[in-house]
Amino acid sequence: MPGLFITLEGGDGAGKTTQLHLLVTSLEEAGHTVVVTREPGGTELGLELREIVLHRRGDMDPRAEALIYAADRAHHIATVVRPALERGDIVVQDRYIDSSEAYQGAGRVLGADEVRDLSLWATHGLLPDVTVLLDLDPAAGRTRLDSARTRYDRLEAEKHDFHSRVRDAYLERAAKEPARFLVVDAAGDITEIATEIRECVQIHLTHPA
Amino acid sequence: MPGLFITLEGGDGAGKTTQLHLLVTSLEEAGHTVVVTREPGGTELGLELREIVLHRRGDMDPRAEALIYAADRAHHIATVVRPALERGDIVVQDRYIDSSEAYQGAGRVLGADEVRDLSLWATHGLLPDVTVLLDLDPAAGRTRLDSARTRYDRLEAEKHDFHSRVRDAYLERAAKEPARFLVVDAAGDITEIATEIRECVQIHLTHPA
Repeated sequence: MPGLFITLEGGDGAGKTTQLHLLVTSLEEAGHTVVVTREPGGTELGLELREIVLHRRGDMDPRAEALIYAADRAHHIATVVRPALERGDIVVQDRYIDSSEAYQGAGRVLGADEVRDLSLWATHGLLPDVTVLLDLDPAAGRTRLDSARTRYDRLEAEKHDFHSRVRDAYLERAAKEPARFLVVDAAGDITEIATEIRECVQIHLTHPA
Repeated sequence: MPGLFITLEGGDGAGKTTQLHLLVTSLEEAGHTVVVTREPGGTELGLELREIVLHRRGDMDPRAEALIYAADRAHHIATVVRPALERGDIVVQDRYIDSSEAYQGAGRVLGADEVRDLSLWATHGLLPDVTVLLDLDPAAGRTRLDSARTRYDRLEAEKHDFHSRVRDAYLERAAKEPARFLVVDAAGDITEIATEIRECVQIHLTHPA
């Protein structure tokens, strides 16, 4: 497909939203057509499913949760991401398959491999061209979130321990696919991180895989 | 597990609901504890998901639809069916894995095998002890539905052609698992069908697998 598919990954409080906006702005200023999206919740169907997963009362069977995320993904990739990439647009997406693997696989009772296989089935195997992993010690992320005084949702309320396993899972995946991943130290300077990301994306735009 | 898991399958208009009630009544009169349930929609989560699949406007990606059904199933089996079977109850369920295979697999663009694998993953491989297939020529089912003058939902509105493929898929599955399936001619007499089903279930209660 002629477009470029970029995903941003990382734990809560790592600055994903900030870096996503900086990247999108720089790409738009350079004249690119950018589709900004996210999972879960990138489509109308996804919003309904996101609402069910994040804010309902009571426990949910872990496989049910994984399947709902995969359903959101299947619909989102088929109706938003693939059409944009076919038009030649740049898609910048907040969270994708690596989030599922890290959060559901490593963090919960499911195997990382089966969660990944489910996502790959849902999307007919679509992987990003570039994945930016904003890596941060979970304790540092926690402090940033506390200072923002936002209400925690169900996932954010999970324990520190969980977030450490998430971080490890992310780093493991990045080590397996070094050509796809840009791992940046999210504790660094915001402007410097933005430059690093911009330069990496520029290389992919100039030399498509 | 000490309980007995019975599912009823068949096309629309085959008399599934009628036979389910007759079976449940006879089991309860014989002193059994019976849990009556259905998919999609056997739990609160399932009702929300059922609402999304059956009544939303606009097309849904076929894999997204399959994943939503599988999510409902995972939650329903984990929170309703397995606990009941572990208590030793009889579970009588309107539609299960064979519906998914027949409707999504044979009827849509997905492979029957992948739909089945998804369901088996969702449920940790739980299969019914007895599956009653109410087999009926789709044209006959259509006529019954028309006379009931109910409003059709999205699935019921599909074409005759689709329902023929559904019927074939059901019969194929029944041929593969003759020990699990009781295939009855749904065009027959209601009372005679009910007797046939009751006798089959009685054999399983007397001689558990």
